[in-house]
Amino acid sequence: MSTGGDRVPAPVQVHRPGQRSETVRRANLSAILRELHLRGPSSRSELVEHTGLTRSGIRAVLGDLVAYDLVREERAASQGAPGRPSPLVRTNPHGATVLAMEIAVDSLAVGIVSLGGVVLDSERVDRPRDRFSLGETVTDLVRLVGRIRSRGGLPDTLVGSAVAVVGIVRRSDGLVRMAPNLGWHDVAFGERIREELGLRLPVAVANEADLGALAEQRRGAAVGSNHVLYISGEVGVGGGLIAAGQPFTGLAGYAGEVGHIPVNPSGTACRCGSVGCWETEVGEPALLARAGRPPGGGRAEVDAVLRDAAAGSAVALHALAEVGRWLGVGLAGLVNVLNPELIVLGGLFGRIHPYVNASLRSELDRLALQASRELVRVVPANLGVDAWLLGAAELAFEPLLADPAAWAPARTNAPATHPA
Amino acid sequence: MSTGGDRVPAPVQVHRPGQRSETVRRANLSAILRELHLRGPSSRSELVEHTGLTRSGIRAVLGDLVAYDLVREERAASQGAPGRPSPLVRTNPHGATVLAMEIAVDSLAVGIVSLGGVVLDSERVDRPRDRFSLGETVTDLVRLVGRIRSRGGLPDTLVGSAVAVVGIVRRSDGLVRMAPNLGWHDVAFGERIREELGLRLPVAVANEADLGALAEQRRGAAVGSNHVLYISGEVGVGGGLIAAGQPFTGLAGYAGEVGHIPVNPSGTACRCGSVGCWETEVGEPALLARAGRPPGGGRAEVDAVLRDAAAGSAVALHALAEVGRWLGVGLAGLVNVLNPELIVLGGLFGRIHPYVNASLRSELDRLALQASRELVRVVPANLGVDAWLLGAAELAFEPLLADPAAWAPARTNAPATHPA
Repeated sequence: MSTGGDRVPAPVQVHRPGQRSETVRRANLSAILRELHLRGPSSRSELVEHTGLTRSGIRAVLGDLVAYDLVREERAASQGAPGRPSPLVRTNPHGATVLAMEIAVDSLAVGIVSLGGVVLDSERVDRPRDRFSLGETVTDLVRLVGRIRSRGGLPDTLVGSAVAVVGIVRRSDGLVRMAPNLGWHDVAFGERIREELGLRLPVAVANEADLGALAEQRRGAAVGSNHVLYISGEVGVGGGLIAAGQPFTGLAGYAGEVGHIPVNPSGTACRCGSVGCWETEVGEPALLARAGRPPGGGRAEVDAVLRDAAAGSAVALHALAEVGRWLGVGLAGLVNVLNPELIVLGGLFGRIHPYVNASLRSELDRLALQASRELVRVVPANLGVDAWLLGAAELAFEPLLADPAAWAPARTNAPATHPA
Repeated sequence: MSTGGDRVPAPVQVHRPGQRSETVRRANLSAILRELHLRGPSSRSELVEHTGLTRSGIRAVLGDLVAYDLVREERAASQGAPGRPSPLVRTNPHGATVLAMEIAVDSLAVGIVSLGGVVLDSERVDRPRDRFSLGETVTDLVRLVGRIRSRGGLPDTLVGSAVAVVGIVRRSDGLVRMAPNLGWHDVAFGERIREELGLRLPVAVANEADLGALAEQRRGAAVGSNHVLYISGEVGVGGGLIAAGQPFTGLAGYAGEVGHIPVNPSGTACRCGSVGCWETEVGEPALLARAGRPPGGGRAEVDAVLRDAAAGSAVALHALAEVGRWLGVGLAGLVNVLNPELIVLGGLFGRIHPYVNASLRSELDRLALQASRELVRVVPANLGVDAWLLGAAELAFEPLLADPAAWAPARTNAPATHPA
């Protein structure tokens, strides 16, 4: 059984303001591979149109990418007849893969995802909301990866790995600064899981909602939108931002922590020690309490509230409308600050969207500045439970996409030649 | 007297992912000119270090920039002795200039600013806070520009113009969507003032706090900080954001409108029609009301509160501390959402900083997430009353800085050869 066969990256080239020709060549490889990874199969003409490279430039880049086995080009049935459709270029789904992982409040998941974003294999388990020790979580994840390995090992083409964690994560080194629902403080989780899995590749770590935002923007409800606010409800409220097409991380990676925006100083105490944080009004416990159900009842009780609402229960409908109203209050402030094009409601908020939509919108209309309000759309997420896993996959692919040339040579080396 | 002599730009080159060699040459011109504009005089070695270009690349770029008369290079006193200091390269302060303008709630200003950010000439007048008609404001600005013209005309090297407006401005075309303190709705102010001034150059328009943020980050309290939140108090509260070193504008340019974040649903009515917006707790009227003074008293009354506070008045000190506390409440949410490196307090907030600092920090400590809280510093702005004017100048220089080569040929043409 393969222990990984993962490639160790060359240092990623820094693109400084003054660019040299080799830097340009590598930037072009990156631009084309990223285009194919995100848009799917494309003709050469489409690549010319979308990247601004010349036809001869595209030809050279594709030659390299095909040689690296990252890209395949279909041959046209016959040569050069005018008007004939251009042969399609596509990523090789087995040319590069990543190991994506997810640690949510009540579930764990792992998956092998291909260049192009296809989940080739995955495992997902629910967990009760007890606080598991770090060791237990590691053991559970290793077991899930083991199931994938038992079906044929990790691919030899593994180029990266990343994990989505419900916590505040320092982007520079993946340190989980705080994950209240897991009971973690300052956990170097990437290094820990890397060792336990016997991977040579580093394992990137990021906040689950940041990765949800990335996934929805690249492959979900926010494709084509460059200014996105993604919020996801569970016990707390997570948020992730895309600004000008790029993840907005803030100084250290903590941006988007919307759950503790003060919205109601005369409200209820928050588990963070403050009063009237947004999540005290819109989190799952707030919904359940408003609906007269046990606040810690979890997903089963939320399902019950949704069933009641569907059956016309006034209590359930009022509880959902109140959550919608407070969603609108917090979103109004965020719309004013961020002027987003799209708000994507994930997790709990995606599930309750049909019942909160009216009160949410009405509060947005009342509180947000009109100029920004009239530009923003609010939609439910559409990647379902795999959003965070797909976001982790995108993060894990990033070094390859940023500089394919730095990775390709590593491919021909046996893993053992790399330092662990 | 010159009517302007301003240059009309060639279309700005779009830098697409796949770059060609002419694009690279122009990008290098841009990188070096920007470097000199922002950092001031530099040696060739420093330019190598800061831009990543080779020595020979720097030589070629400087040759072009000197030929364009945008840059000057001092000759070394003697040739090539090892250890001898490298000759300094600097922008030519008369090589390119911009006309910057500012429309604040209670003042107007105009200035001629040189490449390198030096104010060569300026005019500023206070106005009462009455609502002037659009026509009166235009007339007043034209009069201020006339005073500069009467001292020798606008420079022949004018390459741009921009105006900072206390309003919500669409970035794409400078339409002032709403400026409640001016009574404006959907005013195409840039085109209007361009015609009145007889300029051929377009006049860019932007929100005053966005430009305050830009100026403080390029030349003031936030130099060296890449994730900046600038907030400025007047009657209302303005905000501007810098993310990853770049202005964060949101979809249309409306980002940073922090004044109407809902912070206190059980608070007081806001002039926007809502209740408990941040500015109802921290704006100038809130400070004056808390200090027992007429809320509409303006700057003179604020001065009185500050004098009272300096003399130890408990009422004044308490009023200021309360404003500080509410500043902290709103900033806590913004720190959680944005994870900034630096918060810059401008306008009223800069003036009251010594008196609000303690309560502001204590509230930030209590309400913001620790991971983000411990990374952020709060400082007063340091560009004084000229911050918005300097920000307008930076905006006006942007087309030249983005593509110096597109501007230089226009320089040798007589203005009359350009369509107005």
